[in-house]
Order: sequence, then C-alpha cells, then structure tokens
Amino acid sequence: MFDAYGTLFDTDSVTAQSDREFPGHGSELSHLWRSKQLEYTWLLSLMGEYQEFWEVTRKALRFSCHSLGLVLNDTNIRTLMNEYYRLRTFSDTLPTLEKLTEFRLAILSNGSSDMLERLVNNAGLSSTFEKIFSVDVAKIYKPSPRAYQIVCDGLTLEPSEIGFVSANSFDVIGAARFGLQTFWCNRTNTQLDELDVDPMVEITSLQELPIILNR
Amino acid sequence: MFDAYGTLFDTDSVTAQSDREFPGHGSELSHLWRSKQLEYTWLLSLMGEYQEFWEVTRKALRFSCHSLGLVLNDTNIRTLMNEYYRLRTFSDTLPTLEKLTEFRLAILSNGSSDMLERLVNNAGLSSTFEKIFSVDVAKIYKPSPRAYQIVCDGLTLEPSEIGFVSANSFDVIGAARFGLQTFWCNRTNTQLDELDVDPMVEITSLQELPIILNR
Repeated sequence: MFDAYGTLFDTDSVTAQSDREFPGHGSELSHLWRSKQLEYTWLLSLMGEYQEFWEVTRKALRFSCHSLGLVLNDTNIRTLMNEYYRLRTFSDTLPTLEKLTEFRLAILSNGSSDMLERLVNNAGLSSTFEKIFSVDVAKIYKPSPRAYQIVCDGLTLEPSEIGFVSANSFDVIGAARFGLQTFWCNRTNTQLDELDVDPMVEITSLQELPIILNR
Repeated sequence: MFDAYGTLFDTDSVTAQSDREFPGHGSELSHLWRSKQLEYTWLLSLMGEYQEFWEVTRKALRFSCHSLGLVLNDTNIRTLMNEYYRLRTFSDTLPTLEKLTEFRLAILSNGSSDMLERLVNNAGLSSTFEKIFSVDVAKIYKPSPRAYQIVCDGLTLEPSEIGFVSANSFDVIGAARFGLQTFWCNRTNTQLDELDVDPMVEITSLQELPIILNR
C-alpha cells in the first residue's frame, strides 16, 4: 500500500509550472501551497468538516498566492491545478513498482478518486495497482484512523497484514499507530516527527523495498 | 473570551532566549518551534490522541532543534521551555484589558492549566480573568468543536452569547464555525485562511475592542 503525493508522485513537480506563471516565485509558492494543503486537511478534519482534496488544494493555492502577493486569475488557477493530474513520479517509483509484481499493490491517498485515477493513468500505471483508495470514502483525512481503516475494509485484511509506504512523516506515524506495517521513505534525510511512534522500517529510496521484502 | 498564545501573549518573545542559546538561530528556531507546536496539536487530535501542551511544546522544540542541526541538552530545554511561563504580553494587551472592566473576561487556550496559571500570574493578570479554561478538560485541541464547547459548559452560556478574540486564523475560524461571536486580531496584516468561515469582526489591534464593544 502506497501513499501517492510525495511518495510515488513528486508534488514539487508543480514548481516549474508555478515558476512559469509567477517567475522567480515557483519554489516559494509550491512549498507554501503544499504545506497549506496539508494544514487545511488537518484543520477541516479536526473541525468535523470535509471538503474534497481538489477543493482543498484550490483553496490552499489561493491562500498561498494572496499571502505572497501574487495575483491569481482563472487561467493561472486552472493551469496550476491541472498540474495535479500529471505530477511526475520520483526516479525510484517505476523501477520499484516493476520489481514488486508478486505483491498486491494499492494506493491510499488524500486525493479524490477522480484526481487519483487521472494521475495514475497519466503516469501509465493504471494496470499496476489492484485498488486505488481515496479517503473520500470516509470523508476525513489522514492521519485519522478512519482513513487507514478504509484499506482494511476494502481488502478484507487485518492492519498487520498490510505494508504501508509513505514519505510523509505524519502519514507513516498515523499508519503505524493504526497498526499497519510501515515503511518510511525518507529520501531527503529529514527528521521524523516526535509523535511517539516510529515506523517499522526507514528507507532512503523506494528501491530498497524489493530488497527488504524479498529477503 | 481570549485566546492566550499569540493573542494576549507573544510567542515570539522566546526568540531572544532562543538566540542566546543558539546565537544566530533565534528567529528561525522560534518560528519552526511554534509552527510544529501547532501542527502536533492538530496531528495528535486527528489521530485521537492527547498529550498535554507542555509535552507537545517540548517535543516540538526537540524536533525543531534536531531539524535545524542544533544540539539540545537538558539545560537548553529547561531554559527555553521556562520561557513559556513568562511570555511577554503584546503592547496592546494590558491597555485593552484595563478598559474592559465591565465585561466578564476569560481565557480559552491550548495550554495546560498549570502553564496558563503561571503565565497569567507572571504577567500580573491573575485578578483580571473570571476563569481560565484549558482544552485539557476535553483532551482535544482547537479547532475541534469540543474545545470551544468547554467555555459554554463552564459559563453556562450559549455560543452566541460569548465573544471570542484570537489572533490565530485557524482558531477564530474554528470558533466562528462553532457559533461564537468572533474577533480576529490581525496585527500583522496576514491573510485569513480559506476555510469558508469568516470572523465576525477583523481588528488590527486589541485596542479596537473597547471602542467596538462600548459602541
């Protein structure tokens, strides 16, 4: 079971397009955008509210632009939002998935089903995954336990029978707390969040996965 | 009803001490510390977990230092954490509270009761507030509706009978969504978060409050 954004797909691949729309501000904008996007999923969930990830992503973009003094119009918004349908995979994504053919592969993501299907199709991965789960079913975002419960229900498996791979520290912590087997893909040597739960395994590239799993 | 951290008390007042402990890194450290502190309250709450604010604050400090490559020891931790007992009030805090004597004044904060009592005492404000409410009673952090419910239960008032003042965008949005009358103190001309609820009133200094309320 893989997380999508930041794990299989590089959310930083919106930087180039952001920089075309707002020259000199691409990196600043894409980082604030991603960070607000996550913050909004947490805040909404905590307020007992739910809005689809597309909507959350659009609002985070609007906030980020206003906050940086960048003037958005409908064309900017459409162009930048469409980047979420065609995020690049990381360089270790495809070589890893190709080697995991003996496993049942799936995705669990904050993205809405439509966003995920288009993303996976555009990356040529539509036949790679047995199932693509969106938190949309539970109407609450990760790291709520209800988000991880979706995959157990959908695959009729116990938490401990599922291996979950994420590059997002909060996600792998939420999954570990829920009881999934967890693999933290820490590509950029970042610090694990101090939330009292450690992932089962830490790797620096997805390509370590086939080696570990086939041991 | 006032929020404490960032509203009556300036969390940036830890910057000077941070800079004494880690010369040249005070501002960077205090900003990351505050931002991780809030992030951890949201993530823990969303995972259905609760840890006291003191503990959350300590963990956010540890993460921030590790993340910035700053080496913490027990003395650093104690010195920096103790700053949370004696945060400075903002320049508009005392002049405002002095003019609101005809109102019942209270605090609702993420801080644990012990932290809040020491903070308020150290600022010489112990006789100013009728009650000091900590989310500790509900064991969940703002902006959960359960955090705001505490004040209605504690004062036996309906949400619409309570005016809530916060400088934190997410807090004033959570309070407005819950049904409190809300006043957003936007001292630094920041952008309101795009979460579909607007505060009733926006002010740029607490000193506008007595004018508005006595109208």
